[in-house]
Amino acid sequence: MGKDKSEKSGYQLKVPKGTKDWDGKDMIIRDKIFSTIKEVFKTYGAVTIDTPVFELREILAGKYGEDSKLIYDLADQGGELCSLRYDLTVPFARWLAMNSNIKEIKRYQLDKVYRRDQPAMTKGRMREFYQCDFDIAGTYDPMLPDAECMSITCEIFERLGWQGKYTIKINHRKILDGIFQVCGVPEEKIRTISSAVDKLDKSPWADVRKEMVEEKGLAEDVADRIGEYVVLKGGVDLLERLQKDERLSTNESAKAGLADMDLLFKYLKIDGVLDKVSFDMSLARGLDYYTGVIYEVVTEGSAPQSASTDAAPEKKDAKPKKRSTNSSTATDADEDRSNDPSVGVGSIAAGGRYDNLVSMFSGKQQIPCVGISFGIERIFSLTKARLAATASTTTSSQRTNETDVYVMSVGGNGLLAERKKIVRRLRQAGIKSETAFKEKPRFDKQFKDMERTGVPFALILGEDELKVGKCKIKRNGAPEGDPEKEGVVIALEGLESEVARRIGDWYREQEVAETAGKLDLVRTGFA
Amino acid sequence: MGKDKSEKSGYQLKVPKGTKDWDGKDMIIRDKIFSTIKEVFKTYGAVTIDTPVFELREILAGKYGEDSKLIYDLADQGGELCSLRYDLTVPFARWLAMNSNIKEIKRYQLDKVYRRDQPAMTKGRMREFYQCDFDIAGTYDPMLPDAECMSITCEIFERLGWQGKYTIKINHRKILDGIFQVCGVPEEKIRTISSAVDKLDKSPWADVRKEMVEEKGLAEDVADRIGEYVVLKGGVDLLERLQKDERLSTNESAKAGLADMDLLFKYLKIDGVLDKVSFDMSLARGLDYYTGVIYEVVTEGSAPQSASTDAAPEKKDAKPKKRSTNSSTATDADEDRSNDPSVGVGSIAAGGRYDNLVSMFSGKQQIPCVGISFGIERIFSLTKARLAATASTTTSSQRTNETDVYVMSVGGNGLLAERKKIVRRLRQAGIKSETAFKEKPRFDKQFKDMERTGVPFALILGEDELKVGKCKIKRNGAPEGDPEKEGVVIALEGLESEVARRIGDWYREQEVAETAGKLDLVRTGFA
Repeated sequence: MGKDKSEKSGYQLKVPKGTKDWDGKDMIIRDKIFSTIKEVFKTYGAVTIDTPVFELREILAGKYGEDSKLIYDLADQGGELCSLRYDLTVPFARWLAMNSNIKEIKRYQLDKVYRRDQPAMTKGRMREFYQCDFDIAGTYDPMLPDAECMSITCEIFERLGWQGKYTIKINHRKILDGIFQVCGVPEEKIRTISSAVDKLDKSPWADVRKEMVEEKGLAEDVADRIGEYVVLKGGVDLLERLQKDERLSTNESAKAGLADMDLLFKYLKIDGVLDKVSFDMSLARGLDYYTGVIYEVVTEGSAPQSASTDAAPEKKDAKPKKRSTNSSTATDADEDRSNDPSVGVGSIAAGGRYDNLVSMFSGKQQIPCVGISFGIERIFSLTKARLAATASTTTSSQRTNETDVYVMSVGGNGLLAERKKIVRRLRQAGIKSETAFKEKPRFDKQFKDMERTGVPFALILGEDELKVGKCKIKRNGAPEGDPEKEGVVIALEGLESEVARRIGDWYREQEVAETAGKLDLVRTGFA
Repeated sequence: MGKDKSEKSGYQLKVPKGTKDWDGKDMIIRDKIFSTIKEVFKTYGAVTIDTPVFELREILAGKYGEDSKLIYDLADQGGELCSLRYDLTVPFARWLAMNSNIKEIKRYQLDKVYRRDQPAMTKGRMREFYQCDFDIAGTYDPMLPDAECMSITCEIFERLGWQGKYTIKINHRKILDGIFQVCGVPEEKIRTISSAVDKLDKSPWADVRKEMVEEKGLAEDVADRIGEYVVLKGGVDLLERLQKDERLSTNESAKAGLADMDLLFKYLKIDGVLDKVSFDMSLARGLDYYTGVIYEVVTEGSAPQSASTDAAPEKKDAKPKKRSTNSSTATDADEDRSNDPSVGVGSIAAGGRYDNLVSMFSGKQQIPCVGISFGIERIFSLTKARLAATASTTTSSQRTNETDVYVMSVGGNGLLAERKKIVRRLRQAGIKSETAFKEKPRFDKQFKDMERTGVPFALILGEDELKVGKCKIKRNGAPEGDPEKEGVVIALEGLESEVARRIGDWYREQEVAETAGKLDLVRTGFA
């Protein structure tokens, strides 16, 4: 994206810092990611809602803790004070509170959110960025909706072509709180100690312990006891170990959390996704409103270049957030040193259960919720890097739009009316087609245009053929010996179905050549 | 949408004035309109771009004349000064200027824009609202892109089920300017007199003449000469009349405009849409940046309830704009009196040629553009009213999501694991399906849930049938005598294809029952 100094006006011609235009191939890849994710959501019975890009300022107030300073405010131009939405969760909770007739819903929303953060564009950390949220609201039997959030996450990454290369790190707020209690953390320090634990993905235990003791005034022996727990990770084995833990077995919070996890693992096994999950005691998540299970999805490339030994991701939140002032400069530098967009993008999805947020608005009815938010920019960066890595081995086609047929003329008079009529017939039959905006286009110019935009089929009109009710169809890039290379004469009558058939055959051929599990990018011309 | 006073916090639980949440059936209808329009755009070879919701304030400055006061500014929280986009045209021109390698493009964008206007929600006049723009940028043979804008407009309204009930009013800035010149309007008064003409759709000529003479100081005889022209409307006949007009034939501007119109009519005839166009000399359009052909689309219901004799729409712009202080209170009152959303929504699409806007940013290269903007909220209001009017005659199904199969159990033990496994199989086959988030759901409760959400198919699991590898499929609302009413026993093996076949058959049946040309709302459960 060029940044030109406008000669006329003297101001910089650019988009605001931390924002970008989506166009060209990026747009095509992004759209495929969007439609893949949406289709999975619908397959799981979710509906979508669309909330305003700004909310009354008081709706957002008191929901994001110290990150509230990253909220974009609208100028006071008279009337209500408003702010740009910071996430999609608070607007959803506000909507639930306003629509008190709705007691149960599965909703998804794919929309832009806004944070006045320090941007890191190549990592997908932006000021304007997409979130894609799936949430289940309502009172159901325990852990069934939570398990569905895990299943849908796996389904989405499989359909996006991740082929198992991702892990859902999972923990439970009640277990964490129970651990803090049995280790002797004073009640009023539990949230701040939890925040310290949250940094274990980018700092070694020694640093986190130091923060607990020196900055947060925790007794050394308490910190050490915490240290024994938070390094633990595993699966059902870890759950069994914790269930046998004598200290935890006397703690109500931990017991409740462990019972939840027991049920969750049972359901994940039925759903066939248990192997994608890592029970990780160092996962704490930043947001205060979580009340139960919490999770985040990491993948190869999520970890920073100089990762700590446990290969945890450099940042936990799927959403960019203000770099903590405690984070070491070294970590910042590591990130800046890397120009590889596939390195250190942080988690690619994250979420958890939040049972009390709706009642912050409604004041009365409580609607338990659980959900997950997918970080589109990060998923996009990784997908693009993956496609680029394999691009040389696939076709060289460089389509810039979805046009399938370029209608052209041979001969001096241009046949404009005839071209327009044929294009109209094709378009009305739903066939994506174009013809030159030129009365008398040169034949070679038409062919060059077609090749430049990567349109696969040429429909060639010539005066003599038209007189006998015929025209010719050629396929760009057809191999030697294929009749479509030289051009096949076809009848104008029934043209639409004949052209549609040839396009369909070609797409099927292309798709067979594609590897299974990959995004369907053939139709949109990326592959 | 209820407005609750939150008991807890004391603030009003609502969305900002002039904004709304989209949900439920409205969302389904809106999405169908979106996808229909997008598909047509792609059929015509257009690609989409996505620009940030806010732009640098100086990008928007000086583009909207006195309407600039309606721009939403972001608060100055340090850093760049930004404003929310006011339309999609200026960001597109900014994008073209920044991407100077792109000389030709057909682009569409469907996005929200923001105006601090007086809202009239039932009419679709909002502060946050959708615009859907299609533009052709580049240097081509004259009037070919302009004609395509007309063709695509007709194609879109036909696919939306308008069935010919719309008219494209069309005029040309150069003809208008020529008329003003030959009538004797001083050069410096041409734009302001043009604005007065723009009011002819809601005010009689006498009022407009009065404004020209008394407010704008035009000589009476000049105004009278203008009056002879601006009442004219017609088709090719009017074009021929103007071509023979002696005064206009000496005016360079008028001659250029008439030559354009001549060519345009020729192309519209080839495209088969000439009968949808009304050449209307009273159409002037508000925005300054138009340089050639201008147009707007009106439909039954576009006119205000107490329309002036010429049945022109009450408001011209497809986008809500600040009510002129000159507009009579009577007109405002008319609008408020009407609760019928199908009355007086104004034009449903509008646009024109703007050849100089890009060079306002680039300072150097000029990229001629022509485009049209569809007013989604207005199209939505009319579509919804039309569907509501015919709703009683169609099916009574009340689907709230796209789920096709509800997997349920009979018997006391709930069969949770079996239900989960079957749902997983169906979902992985792309079949939209759900099961209750309940370990042991009651049979009647499951059926009620299914009926409430309008899911068409029930897949019923019973212990005895499962043992022999079978289950039962029933269709909600199947007629007496149809085996799917009582339930058909099917094998678990190959379940996915059997279920998919039955769903497919049912959809095809429903679609045949639909009238041609209507929005495909069956699949999404509206009809």
